[in-house]
Amino acid sequence: MSAAAFDHQHTRVPLPFDVKSLRGLSEKMMQSHWENNYSGAVNALNNVRGRLSQALSDANTPPYVYNGLKREQLLRTGSVVLHELYFANLGGDGKASGDLRSRIAASFGTFDVWESEFRKIGQGLGGGSGWVVLGYNHRLKLLENYWLADHGSNPADTAPLLVMDMYEHAYQMDYGAAAARYIDAFFANIQWDAVSKRL
Amino acid sequence: MSAAAFDHQHTRVPLPFDVKSLRGLSEKMMQSHWENNYSGAVNALNNVRGRLSQALSDANTPPYVYNGLKREQLLRTGSVVLHELYFANLGGDGKASGDLRSRIAASFGTFDVWESEFRKIGQGLGGGSGWVVLGYNHRLKLLENYWLADHGSNPADTAPLLVMDMYEHAYQMDYGAAAARYIDAFFANIQWDAVSKRL
Amino acid sequence: MSAAAFDHQHTRVPLPFDVKSLRGLSEKMMQSHWENNYSGAVNALNNVRGRLSQALSDANTPPYVYNGLKREQLLRTGSVVLHELYFANLGGDGKASGDLRSRIAASFGTFDVWESEFRKIGQGLGGGSGWVVLGYNHRLKLLENYWLADHGSNPADTAPLLVMDMYEHAYQMDYGAAAARYIDAFFANIQWDAVSKRL
Amino acid sequence: MSAAAFDHQHTRVPLPFDVKSLRGLSEKMMQSHWENNYSGAVNALNNVRGRLSQALSDANTPPYVYNGLKREQLLRTGSVVLHELYFANLGGDGKASGDLRSRIAASFGTFDVWESEFRKIGQGLGGGSGWVVLGYNHRLKLLENYWLADHGSNPADTAPLLVMDMYEHAYQMDYGAAAARYIDAFFANIQWDAVSKRL
Repeated sequence: MSAAAFDHQHTRVPLPFDVKSLRGLSEKMMQSHWENNYSGAVNALNNVRGRLSQALSDANTPPYVYNGLKREQLLRTGSVVLHELYFANLGGDGKASGDLRSRIAASFGTFDVWESEFRKIGQGLGGGSGWVVLGYNHRLKLLENYWLADHGSNPADTAPLLVMDMYEHAYQMDYGAAAARYIDAFFANIQWDAVSKRL
Repeated sequence: MSAAAFDHQHTRVPLPFDVKSLRGLSEKMMQSHWENNYSGAVNALNNVRGRLSQALSDANTPPYVYNGLKREQLLRTGSVVLHELYFANLGGDGKASGDLRSRIAASFGTFDVWESEFRKIGQGLGGGSGWVVLGYNHRLKLLENYWLADHGSNPADTAPLLVMDMYEHAYQMDYGAAAARYIDAFFANIQWDAVSKRL
Repeated sequence: MSAAAFDHQHTRVPLPFDVKSLRGLSEKMMQSHWENNYSGAVNALNNVRGRLSQALSDANTPPYVYNGLKREQLLRTGSVVLHELYFANLGGDGKASGDLRSRIAASFGTFDVWESEFRKIGQGLGGGSGWVVLGYNHRLKLLENYWLADHGSNPADTAPLLVMDMYEHAYQMDYGAAAARYIDAFFANIQWDAVSKRL
Repeated sequence: MSAAAFDHQHTRVPLPFDVKSLRGLSEKMMQSHWENNYSGAVNALNNVRGRLSQALSDANTPPYVYNGLKREQLLRTGSVVLHELYFANLGGDGKASGDLRSRIAASFGTFDVWESEFRKIGQGLGGGSGWVVLGYNHRLKLLENYWLADHGSNPADTAPLLVMDMYEHAYQMDYGAAAARYIDAFFANIQWDAVSKRL
């Protein structure tokens, strides 16, 4: 088969900010995050796509083996997409304003309630992994926060707006197990303009 | 807290077709599917939302207990959204045409390759549960098929276009373990106009 | 590689009771359960084992593709093991007595509390799938009930004693969505002697 | 309810080795692992147990909310049990011998094949989390390696013998993203006598 769905090779998106400019998130950690975790996901997704193409052409592939590869595709797709959104919503001054801030306040009662739920979710990762996402659910027509226990756990039919990586590779190198301090640093560096444009 | 994200009560969407008009999918099974499985998910989502509101106000709720509820919210959100899309893409004559058919063919090489992958995924559900989704991934700019092992496993930043329920409640009553015959019936009843409008 | 861990071919264990003797669980459903769901899991496990052997010998297999197969192995292993324990704890008169009954009562306060929790877990399966297990946790030295959301979700270091299948193939054919009536039938047919011997 | 299954409060097991004696695994990292990740799991398990007891007594708790807590119980149980086994199989000289070595070799063809699979699984963790376990499956009567994607993913009816933590908190502080170097250090410190006694 020669077609986009099977042949597409994803190209890595560079870090969209000066890696030395973040406050409280070290250059060393961000570089490692991009080069190891994100790049590894891109390579894996591209490799799995090729294997799917082969497996679909091979009549001996049982459906449950095929779906083992589809599961990997779903996981790597989530990792690639969420990492790109995460990097792209960093590099700012952390100050939310304007229409998005108003809409968040309207949905959650106040902006502070939204922030307190977003932070609470980030602190509740028992297994040391996962994502916190503010998303707009197209079907429910709601702005909501979601907890994603892994890359493949996403809300259905939802545009991710603000994405926070809570895998330990996002903070252990700088903060050890002090996840709350990492969440402070994340908030201080949010690029809210990028978040607004996603809505 | 009094705010949409916590107070929203979802209302059930009626079946968007004459339940006697489907070919090979019995009225009894579709009614049970809507009244038990879909309605149960709506009730659960509404209930969990209320519990989240209480738990966020209670300083004694540890974050990992809060996230247990957030996980339930994610699962019920997926069940509600995917069921509504599933019902709404049934009731048609199963004949794809026009722009969407062309775009699927362009993405997968041919329309038949797309259909063969979609069907193969449906036959590979080892555990008797899951969804098959043709989606448009906004980030990767690709039409792709996905296998969702449960309601909470969704592709990130993706619009679901065609949704097939492969939980056993979708077919056991009519077909027992003969999932492939259910998939035939599903394809014969696809409402492609509804699918096209989602793109 | 020629070795048990890679070459083992599992042989199906026949149903350990007269399939016409169960009360409230039809011969048709139990036969379908054994022939389709259980046998499918055995075939899948044997097939995946062969693929693992090949993949380990092939230096081109990236670890994340290898682990996709390992995940399938874990899921099929769970399905095979849990199905065999489920069938083997049916075919009795449902009357618990003796030492096991006393130990359950001691662990849960009363036998009825144990039964009410076991039944409640069975009724809470939002996705239409999963298992309920009474197990003895060797590390914690506790008799506990567990909810397994899929075949691969099991308590660590625990001997499963009583196993109830809550996948929809275990009851939809006889009871539709009325899971509580299936649970009644399950309890009426428990083979408690088999359960006692597992302790 | 006053009974072991609901009231049991687990007590932390101290690190069973001199934390300064390990080679290539720093005192700082091991202390953080024990004090933050393991102790956090013990606290969470004890807390969830209390909440289960309350929820079971409350007729207003819907089964799907109850099962949200049971899922947390399963996850924390896995984290507690697997961490204790992990710590207890460190502190040795890494040299396997005797009966267990022979049995591993018999099951996998050679001891080196076993080790190569165990290491390969460890390198394949796409999401930065999980466990690798050599276990004895009581039902299949096989020594096998398993990949556990999270604390709740365990092989059914299996005694864990050798347990390697691949969550990033187990190695990022010392090795960053260089998981393979951590695996070397893990192997150099295996306490094989403890592993043998588990069989």
